[in-house]
Amino acid sequence: MIIRKTEEVEAIEAVEGGAVGVKMRVLLGEPEGVPNFVLRYFHVEPGGASPRHSHTWEHEVYVLEGGGSVFEGDKEHKISPGDAVLVPPNQEHQFKASNTEPLVFLCIIPKK
Amino acid sequence: MIIRKTEEVEAIEAVEGGAVGVKMRVLLGEPEGVPNFVLRYFHVEPGGASPRHSHTWEHEVYVLEGGGSVFEGDKEHKISPGDAVLVPPNQEHQFKASNTEPLVFLCIIPKK
Repeated sequence: MIIRKTEEVEAIEAVEGGAVGVKMRVLLGEPEGVPNFVLRYFHVEPGGASPRHSHTWEHEVYVLEGGGSVFEGDKEHKISPGDAVLVPPNQEHQFKASNTEPLVFLCIIPKK
Repeated sequence: MIIRKTEEVEAIEAVEGGAVGVKMRVLLGEPEGVPNFVLRYFHVEPGGASPRHSHTWEHEVYVLEGGGSVFEGDKEHKISPGDAVLVPPNQEHQFKASNTEPLVFLCIIPKK
């Protein structure tokens, strides 16, 4: 059994694809020996966003704090704490914090 | 893309294996078309607990609110919000709320 405290896991600045103000903590991943999926924690600063992109794997997201939007292609959906989001494989998407609040969420992906 | 609000998802009383005071919401599962893993939300009332058991699949857990313990066999680990827990396959485990607070957490499992 492995127990990790979020604040003790290193936060990595995510810069790929034009991400702005996005920090990621990999809470449970390959070094912890996960069999199938990776649990990641994201903090997007106010006004920041992940890149609008698509890929062959899904996201399962749970919003923890703050607020913002998820884009389904060009369609904007407001999201807030307690929302669970399934981004299916190959769907264009983007996560964006509001201009006044951060957007903090968990994002689970399959192990590569 | 599917977005579901936790409070709008039906809470099911979990009674299998001797669970006490445990309610589960399946936020993203087979009906939502998840490709690989299922995102579930648990609320364990103060003094309640999931059964002490083991199975062939892993749990990845994130503690949202309240407090309590996870048992690794007979070994007790205190857990609190922001803790991520990997329960590997075939490890005996149990989640227990404290006597004064609920224990609220996400638990991700592989799709069957």
